[in-house]
Amino acid sequence: MAAAGRPMIVDIHTHVYTPAYVELLRRRAEVPRVVRSADGEERVILLKEEVSGDGSNSKGRPVGPQYWDSRAKLSFMDAHGIDVSVVSLANPWLDFLGPTEAVETARKLNDELEAYCASAHASNDNQTDDTSFSPLTQARLFAFGSLPLVPGVEPAAVLEAVEQIQQSPHLRGVIMGTKGLGKGLDDPEMEPVYRALSSAGLIVFVHPHYGVENAFGEQDNGHVLALGLGFPLETTIGIARLILAGVLDRHPDLKLLLAHSAGALPALSSRLASCITHDPHVKDRLQTDFRFYLGQMWYDALAYGPEELALVERVISRAGNYECRDEELPFIQRVNGRADLLAPVAVYPGVERLLFGTDHPFFPPLEGDSSARWPSVDENLDAIAGVPGWGKQERDRVLGQNAVELFGLEAKGKIGLDRRWALCL
Amino acid sequence: MAAAGRPMIVDIHTHVYTPAYVELLRRRAEVPRVVRSADGEERVILLKEEVSGDGSNSKGRPVGPQYWDSRAKLSFMDAHGIDVSVVSLANPWLDFLGPTEAVETARKLNDELEAYCASAHASNDNQTDDTSFSPLTQARLFAFGSLPLVPGVEPAAVLEAVEQIQQSPHLRGVIMGTKGLGKGLDDPEMEPVYRALSSAGLIVFVHPHYGVENAFGEQDNGHVLALGLGFPLETTIGIARLILAGVLDRHPDLKLLLAHSAGALPALSSRLASCITHDPHVKDRLQTDFRFYLGQMWYDALAYGPEELALVERVISRAGNYECRDEELPFIQRVNGRADLLAPVAVYPGVERLLFGTDHPFFPPLEGDSSARWPSVDENLDAIAGVPGWGKQERDRVLGQNAVELFGLEAKGKIGLDRRWALCL
Repeated sequence: MAAAGRPMIVDIHTHVYTPAYVELLRRRAEVPRVVRSADGEERVILLKEEVSGDGSNSKGRPVGPQYWDSRAKLSFMDAHGIDVSVVSLANPWLDFLGPTEAVETARKLNDELEAYCASAHASNDNQTDDTSFSPLTQARLFAFGSLPLVPGVEPAAVLEAVEQIQQSPHLRGVIMGTKGLGKGLDDPEMEPVYRALSSAGLIVFVHPHYGVENAFGEQDNGHVLALGLGFPLETTIGIARLILAGVLDRHPDLKLLLAHSAGALPALSSRLASCITHDPHVKDRLQTDFRFYLGQMWYDALAYGPEELALVERVISRAGNYECRDEELPFIQRVNGRADLLAPVAVYPGVERLLFGTDHPFFPPLEGDSSARWPSVDENLDAIAGVPGWGKQERDRVLGQNAVELFGLEAKGKIGLDRRWALCL
Repeated sequence: MAAAGRPMIVDIHTHVYTPAYVELLRRRAEVPRVVRSADGEERVILLKEEVSGDGSNSKGRPVGPQYWDSRAKLSFMDAHGIDVSVVSLANPWLDFLGPTEAVETARKLNDELEAYCASAHASNDNQTDDTSFSPLTQARLFAFGSLPLVPGVEPAAVLEAVEQIQQSPHLRGVIMGTKGLGKGLDDPEMEPVYRALSSAGLIVFVHPHYGVENAFGEQDNGHVLALGLGFPLETTIGIARLILAGVLDRHPDLKLLLAHSAGALPALSSRLASCITHDPHVKDRLQTDFRFYLGQMWYDALAYGPEELALVERVISRAGNYECRDEELPFIQRVNGRADLLAPVAVYPGVERLLFGTDHPFFPPLEGDSSARWPSVDENLDAIAGVPGWGKQERDRVLGQNAVELFGLEAKGKIGLDRRWALCL
């Protein structure tokens, strides 16, 4: 699909609001909602802080076809040389719905997402009605499905949604917030969900929405603190709690992909490891050092700077150094009983777990032609280009090859085995 | 002072509770407080989460002479080869007091801190009563003073405390939380305090206490999340707000030293910069790119891993690349009107702004002889030893030389000029 001589580019962090979802937001009187301003422009208001004191709804962000029309997504992709996108519903997903409505909406939404992806394929094929799965040479859109993860929902209903997503040719994972069923990702009630997602081999894209409470003071800083800090810090806390709860010990096959390069988790992982070993209540809980688990996850490459991205690569790569504490053996030896395989440090090359993303349609240029290249995209391409020590091979992995392998973009059902497990066979 | 052939080691992150402060905590019925358990051991309870549900006060941390006796501090220093310590009151400082009591307590505390430092000198000098300033060859303890920064205090009272600290030979800076006068470090009411601290040339050690609210869920994770994440995230948010308020634009001489390597601020600084340039309400507020300001501050080297520490160094070093936006000139050229000086990137070498610290007496070994070496200290020494590209010169800077220069440890009043300003003269 990529033109000769240039790498294939896959965008795994790019959002949509499907038509039915936008309708739902238009009908609402509370945040989150879509409102129409006096000038006729529609705006989405996601955060309480975005509601103006004077009720003018001057805040929020403009919404338009870039959110729901696959042709607008394809235009953006073409402007940036993006071959394939794996789209996901933008926050706050279904979090504001009751359990019954969430289950129904998730089902409808996943069908809509499948049609959204297929429509792009159909339009490439001269508007045929064939919406069946297309090989990679034709399909340009894939998606993460949505789960009805709200308080009070029956686990069985969540598992049905997992099943629906697994059966949908263009859906290759799920997007998930940090609230789980209301109590967070360390809630024991999440166990059957993790088990089902592991079995299904679906990629779980963990994405923030809520930020942190009461931390940003009285000064007006626009969206800067909520998005610049609140978002990545929420992911950091959510995943730290998940790891501390032993989720990755019990579900080593769970494939978590962390938004915004996992925020502050890489930079604080050694401090967390030290706090664990110095806390009598926690020190013996996990099978290995906290830093080991950072090598079991995937990360988008939305770190905005080469220095930041380099850190993420390093903390993934070093994970193999933190051997299994129980048996004093590297993890790879423990799981297959053989001692003659690769040294663990080589098993988790960080560059194989970083995946390019854009966060489209958020962070558009404030001025100028929004159909031209976006600085927010180029910042992250520049970061990938600027990591010390990376050559073309590493950059091509992050730009697209990792996504092709992780999401099995060649063909449904042949999703690439995690290299670690492939080596064990 | 250092033995021949080994570098001088200065610990700039090491805490005390002076005797009067411990008495204050013993008298209290609410957190923060010091309680005596049934076994006779005293424990300090700092966080609400530490109070056991059954009221048994089984949580909290043991306190003893290591908190208030300078001989215990010196023993710890000797066990780790630390030549000089710059001690500071441990959190929560005076935050829980009303304004009148805070002003009185700060005055008493600063006198006690001066005596604490002088007592160590005196004991080295065969118990003479001379508590006057000692040259570096004799003094082993210096301190950050405390300010009565609580809601309702008169600015004049804070400025008096600054004056008192400036007049105290062993006090070389102040420790400051992130609440300011109750509304945070971006509160306009803090302006006279910043002005006074800049004029006095005192180092401002910014340290967390409160963490983040309602983020850690229902599972019992001991202190891990409050200390491993809450602390560094609080500092991250506090300093981001301070920068966004323009404090470093208005007070370029303010010398901020950030605890725990500024937490997540380095890793999120490019994202914050991008969020600023994409926010119409904020994009024109600061004089330069957000990343520039990271080169104006100092950082302790409590990052716990070489990869994390390397990131901090890189983000400080790159700060000079973010030239003044207004005049399209590097900052150093803008401030002195000359264009023939050093390129800005060389003006902020990160390795000159990182300073070794231990966090003593927190994070003691859980088992074994606490008079032996502490793993929590060795982790950070190992991190300094392991940063790629650092040789003996860089390590010696971080271990002690930077502190000697920043705190002017040679002689009071000859506090070293910031190299940037020295170059401009």
